[in-house]
Parts: sequence; structure tokens; C-alpha cells
Amino acid sequence: MSKSRGSGNSIQQVAGNGLLDRRALLSRGVMLAGAMGAGAAGSVTGAAAEPLTEAPWSTHPGDVTPPYQRPSQFENNVVRTVDNPNNEPSGSRARTPHHLLKGTITPNGLHFTIMHAGIPNIDPAQHKLVIHGMVKQPLVFTPETLSRYSMVTRVGFTECGGNSAPLFSNEPIQADVQALHGLSSCAEWTGVPLWALLDEAGVDPKAKWIIAEGADSPHLTRSVPLKKVMDDAMVAMYQNGERIQPGQGYPMRLWLPGYEGNMNVKFLRRVQVTDQPGMTYFESKIYSDPLPDGKDTQFYFVQEVKSFITSPSHGFALKEPGIYEISGIAYSGTGRIAKVLVSADGGKSWAESALQEPRLPKAFTRFSMPWRWDGGPAILQSRAWDEAGNMQPTREQFVALRGQTTKPPNVRGFPGHHFNAITSWGVEPKGEVKHVYA
Amino acid sequence: MSKSRGSGNSIQQVAGNGLLDRRALLSRGVMLAGAMGAGAAGSVTGAAAEPLTEAPWSTHPGDVTPPYQRPSQFENNVVRTVDNPNNEPSGSRARTPHHLLKGTITPNGLHFTIMHAGIPNIDPAQHKLVIHGMVKQPLVFTPETLSRYSMVTRVGFTECGGNSAPLFSNEPIQADVQALHGLSSCAEWTGVPLWALLDEAGVDPKAKWIIAEGADSPHLTRSVPLKKVMDDAMVAMYQNGERIQPGQGYPMRLWLPGYEGNMNVKFLRRVQVTDQPGMTYFESKIYSDPLPDGKDTQFYFVQEVKSFITSPSHGFALKEPGIYEISGIAYSGTGRIAKVLVSADGGKSWAESALQEPRLPKAFTRFSMPWRWDGGPAILQSRAWDEAGNMQPTREQFVALRGQTTKPPNVRGFPGHHFNAITSWGVEPKGEVKHVYA
Repeated sequence: MSKSRGSGNSIQQVAGNGLLDRRALLSRGVMLAGAMGAGAAGSVTGAAAEPLTEAPWSTHPGDVTPPYQRPSQFENNVVRTVDNPNNEPSGSRARTPHHLLKGTITPNGLHFTIMHAGIPNIDPAQHKLVIHGMVKQPLVFTPETLSRYSMVTRVGFTECGGNSAPLFSNEPIQADVQALHGLSSCAEWTGVPLWALLDEAGVDPKAKWIIAEGADSPHLTRSVPLKKVMDDAMVAMYQNGERIQPGQGYPMRLWLPGYEGNMNVKFLRRVQVTDQPGMTYFESKIYSDPLPDGKDTQFYFVQEVKSFITSPSHGFALKEPGIYEISGIAYSGTGRIAKVLVSADGGKSWAESALQEPRLPKAFTRFSMPWRWDGGPAILQSRAWDEAGNMQPTREQFVALRGQTTKPPNVRGFPGHHFNAITSWGVEPKGEVKHVYA
Repeated sequence: MSKSRGSGNSIQQVAGNGLLDRRALLSRGVMLAGAMGAGAAGSVTGAAAEPLTEAPWSTHPGDVTPPYQRPSQFENNVVRTVDNPNNEPSGSRARTPHHLLKGTITPNGLHFTIMHAGIPNIDPAQHKLVIHGMVKQPLVFTPETLSRYSMVTRVGFTECGGNSAPLFSNEPIQADVQALHGLSSCAEWTGVPLWALLDEAGVDPKAKWIIAEGADSPHLTRSVPLKKVMDDAMVAMYQNGERIQPGQGYPMRLWLPGYEGNMNVKFLRRVQVTDQPGMTYFESKIYSDPLPDGKDTQFYFVQEVKSFITSPSHGFALKEPGIYEISGIAYSGTGRIAKVLVSADGGKSWAESALQEPRLPKAFTRFSMPWRWDGGPAILQSRAWDEAGNMQPTREQFVALRGQTTKPPNVRGFPGHHFNAITSWGVEPKGEVKHVYA
């Protein structure tokens, strides 16, 4: 009953170890060969309807429609990994399962969060946002009064400065893309431009910074250059259409497109306009990266150009040689993604991937690449460029600049943040995919 | 301590009854006047931090971080209205609360659904999709094998042909935008282009249609022109990044950008390639609209250009005269939205609204318009044009063509579907907003 299938040999190979022309994704005859080569479909024997299962759901009425729909019970594994499930008195990180998602929007339930003392259950009727400091007229807003203002909508990523920190290890940690890169997500945010509120308060021409403070018990506080604030900072109230989630700062958060996650102060209750930064804990200690020469970075705000392959990635098992789609995410805090190259031979040769449109600035862009796995060893890598010409560094380049360490695989044990170098997935002859350095 | 506020008089009025230049949304000094005129912010007296509440969430640790985050308990009213909560043996409609949402993405939990016999709880390991009929080689796919194929991602709306049917009533039904227009939503869909699977099966050149069938117990069946299928039909598996929800057809659905919702067959299990349509129940009876001349429409597929104001809308109460943002949604099954005009005087005068970028084809586009309400009566309307030059009809034009009825406000009681004419919200002197015909 099996049908003889092609091996995708009719598709042009564009780089070593089986990378195929990305245009194969769009041209019919060629993609057909690829699909068949993948051995994915099975032929139908006898009556066409024969393989259809008349399961209980095909013969009996289904369940009630709920007011708020949840994912299928068969997707119960598609959740964030939570590293503090008992809410011990320390931080709590929840990571996005990129290896189980597709597209560019992170659904609200799966957006990463980092909490420093649990998730506050804020009654919006009691929440206020104060704007004060170097302004003509201090102002106070409630969620209700803020809702009167004109809002803007923008899709964009948010990434923790500590995302990918396990890659500072001098040996590749055997962990999946969720564990390594899960502190980055992308959503459609809607809110009031912060410049509109500052204009209403009347900013002193000598002001250079704002200091933003959250209403949760740690009162997380960060300084943001006024230039960034007047450019594209938002007091976000909606996330993918609905009010922002408790872990994202309900009822309102500061959202700074492309800037380090921690600066996007959640539960925003205070914006102080100043002429100097606050030198707060998170900017003077935590996200100030020690460098190999003994100095530290200071005010490292923009999340730089980055990409990683989500499928196949660590933990995947390729069942048989054939055509696969290499798929991943690229983004840059500077602007749009311009191109993403992919390698299947550990960086010896590269080919350009297909980019999903629309490519929005400071947002996830999905890239994809057809690949014929011949059953032998392969090392899959992606490397992104943004529209400003910034290039994702190789691991070698990054380590030369920023160092690596033998400390254990714990974010706090690593010497730095803002890791944006190339990630490598090694495909073993049996099809198992591992995290490797190459 | 109250501050004297402007009335927005410095902003150019561009149409009758207070419609202001949409560029006021983007220019700082002008928006400032508008914001102040709205009387939204309150001035701060004494110490800046004085108005801040040191509520329990500001002094005590918060809650545990869950693997899958839910909206705040204070947003429990932001749900779909479900008209069959006891799952009686009939259909069940769940409507999107547009008046409580912003932006253009509908979060997965709030995407509208219509079920004809409940929501089946399908085990994806037992689900199959068969492609047969006028093909060289019938094929069968499982969700797992389909996952090997190259996927595409596209943001787009889905709208029930019966959305807005209450507006066929010859008297305006006093119901909110959720009840009137809630059977339309917009999401980012990811899946396999159906043409790729049909190419693999090898379509007979004489074929003209496909007949798609669902795996739920009604086995909902619809015919789709092959031309549409080969253009942009998708076997969708992901919705806003995660696997599609049970009410959306888990584990896979047909998704036809811009086409009538019912055709987007959920729980897709069979695609038969044919040379003629199936003349199934939903295409020969339900969505075939009787016309005033006694004839019926047949195969009315494209959801035509449409818009409605979501804020303010029926059920809102404006507290005081001042500046408000008029905000709404526009979309067209033909392509991109080109412009949306707004009127505050029941269509006597119009002004162009601001459109949120990016404007994607066959997707929600959010429009907005600053408006100074003087406390008198007003009738708010929106009217959309798409890039092909199609214009949303007035109610008068629509009724002349399609009729109206005195039957009760029940979708099944109305003579037709595909209502896309202008909706009018009447603002009464006390600020209450009602559904009116104008």
C-alpha cells in the first residue's frame, strides 16, 4: 500500500548538508516533491472514507460552550515552566514553550513572566498612576480616566535581559528552547502613549530621565531615558485585545518596545521626571554586566538582534531521513529583521531563509527553511540581521567580548545578561536533537 | 485644587457636531488640549506620592505564578455571551465582547464560536484528514504528519454569515455591540496551505470545487470553489501561536480568509475534490438569503466591507461633555481597508478617521477619531471602504436591496444574513448611548 515517494532531489540545494532553496516553500511542484519526500502523507486504500474514525465525538453531541474558551485537554503540556511553583519568598520565572508554538503572537496565557514577589491581585478601582517631579503640573490617573485617552496599538516582543543566560556556560547545557530562550515573547499591546501624559503634565526642558515604579510589594523601579519615553513608550492596558494579564502588570504597565524586559515596569504607579537616573537595584547591580576586563556595562537597554531555531530543537527526535521545515524566531530591539541565514553544517555554509510577512519593527519575525536530512550528523544554526545592519554575533565573537563561565546552570550563577549569539542544535544520526556549541 | 481645563477648542473641527481632525491623535500640543479638555487627569496636591494607595498588594507578597496565566478576577465580566449555557440539543453561539476589547487581535478565549451540536473533545491521535475524489492519489493525514509540512501564518478575521442579523429588524433592537456584531473575530492563524496537500494528491484538471466535512457529530459540510482553495485556503492548526481551541475546530480547521464563517469547516476530516458543489444544508438553505423579489441569493461567500464603532456604543454612559475617542473595527473579505469615515451627526457630515497600522488584508483594522461631545444629542456612525473600492452601504441602501422584517430579535427569525450596512449609536443628552436607525 505504500507509495514510492521522491526524496526532494528536484529542489535546488543552496547550502551544505541539505539546505534547500527557500522559494521551494512557495512554488508548488517543488514543494510537492518536498512534501512527498517527507513521507508525511499516507495513501488511502479502498473507499475514501475508510480511514475516518467514527469516534464518540463524531456520533454524539459535544460539550457546552464556555464563556471563556480554554485550549484542548490534549494540549495540557503546552504550558510555561514555572521555577517557583510553591511561591517561596524569591523570584519566579515562567518560560514560553517556543518549541510547541507557531506564528509570531504569543498567546496571553503563555507569555513569559518574571515576578520578584509573586503576582499582586490589584483592584483597578484602587490603582493610581502619578506623574510628578520635573513637571509643571503633577497629575494622577486612574485606569478609568486613562481609558478616556486615545490609544495606540503595536505588536512587539518583550525579552528579559537574562534570557538565554544559560548559554554563558562554557559547556552546552542540555535543555530545550523553552529553558534556554523562553524569557522572550511577543504580543499586540494597546495603551496610551506616555508622551501624551507627560505633555499634559508639562515636562521641564532640563529633564533627561523618568524613574518608573511598580505597585507590587517590591516596588520595582527603573530609569528610562526621556528620549525613549517621548519616542515610543506606552502605558499598556491591553494585551492581544483583552486587558493585560496579572503577570504582565494588570491594570497597567510601562511598555518600551525593544528595551530590556525588566525596564517595562509592571503595575505602573509612579513616573517621576528627573534630570538623572535613579541608579536603582536592577540597573546598578542586576543588569549591569561584568566584562572580562573587570569593568561593567551600564544602562544596557536595547535587546540586540537575535534568532533561534524552535523546530527542530533540543529534545526533538527526527523519525526518518527526509524533508523537514526548519522554523524559528528572529527579532531586534533596533527595528525590523532584514534577513536570517540558516546553516545545517555548523556555520560552514549558509542560505537565506524565508521570512513571514508582515515584518514589524521590534517584533518577532518567523523564519523558515526547507531542509533535506540525509540521516547523517548535522548542526543547525540561524543568524539574523536587522534593518540597521546589526548582525547576530557568533558564539566565538560573543564569548571574546563578554566571557563565559564554569558556574552551574542557574541564571543567577552566570556573569552576565543580554546573550544574543548563535544557538546550535546538533542532529545525531538517530535523529535526536541536542544543544551543542559549534 | 481643580485645574481650569481647555475644551479642545484649539483642535480643528473637521465635521459636524464635534468631530475633530484625526491628526490631533498624533500631534502633541493639540492632543494635550484634547486630553485636558476631557478632564481625565486629576492634579496632584501636596506630596507626589500622597495619592498612592499602599494597598495589601503593595505591602505583601503576591500569588503564585501559574503555568497558564488567566485574566485578572476583576475582568470576570470580559467574557463571551453564551446563548445555550445548558447545552440543549440545538446550536450554541458565543459572542466576542468588542465593547470591552481594544486593538485588532481577539484573544483565543474570546474568539466567537458557533457550534451545531456542542464542542467535540477530539483526541488528535485518533483524528485523520482524508483528501479524495477527483485526485490522482487519495491521501490521508494525521495532525502529526501534517506538522511536517511547511506552514504559513496570516492574521485575519472570521465572521459568521449571520453576524449583525438583528439589524434586519425594522426597529432598532436595544442591544450592545457584542449582541449585534459579536459573531466576528480576528486572530493570527498558522497552518498548511491546502493547495500544497491538493498538489500532492494531484487534482484532476476538470475539478472545480472541494467539499469539506467536519468530524463533529453534525458532520458540517460546505462546498468551496477550487479557485479560492488554491489561492489562500489553509488547514489551520495554530491560533495566536498556540494550537487552535476546541471551539475553533481542534485539532484542525479549514480557514478561508474573508469567506463566510460557516465555510471555515472545523474539525476538518474530509476534503472531497469535485466538479460541482454539494448543495449542502448550510449552503442551499441556511445561508441562502431570500430577497425582496422572491428570489434567493446562492453561494454568497465573501464577507463584504463593514465597520462598526465599539466605543462609545450601546450601553455606554458618557459622564460629562468633553473630548472622547471614537474607536471601532473595520474589515473586508476582499482585501485591505482603505479608509473609514466617521459621522457624529447621523451622516450629514463625515470626516476621515485614523487607521491603525499595519493594515492587513482581510483582517480587522482599528479606526479612531477624536470627538468633542458638547452634551447635546449626537448620532455616531462609521462607514468603511476597502482597497478594491467597495463601500459599506447605508442602512437605506441595504434595506432597499435586501429587505427588513418585523420578526422578533432572533437570528433565525430574520430573513437573511450578511448584513454589512452602517450601524448608528445615538448619544442622548444625559450621555446614554442607544442603538438607533438613522
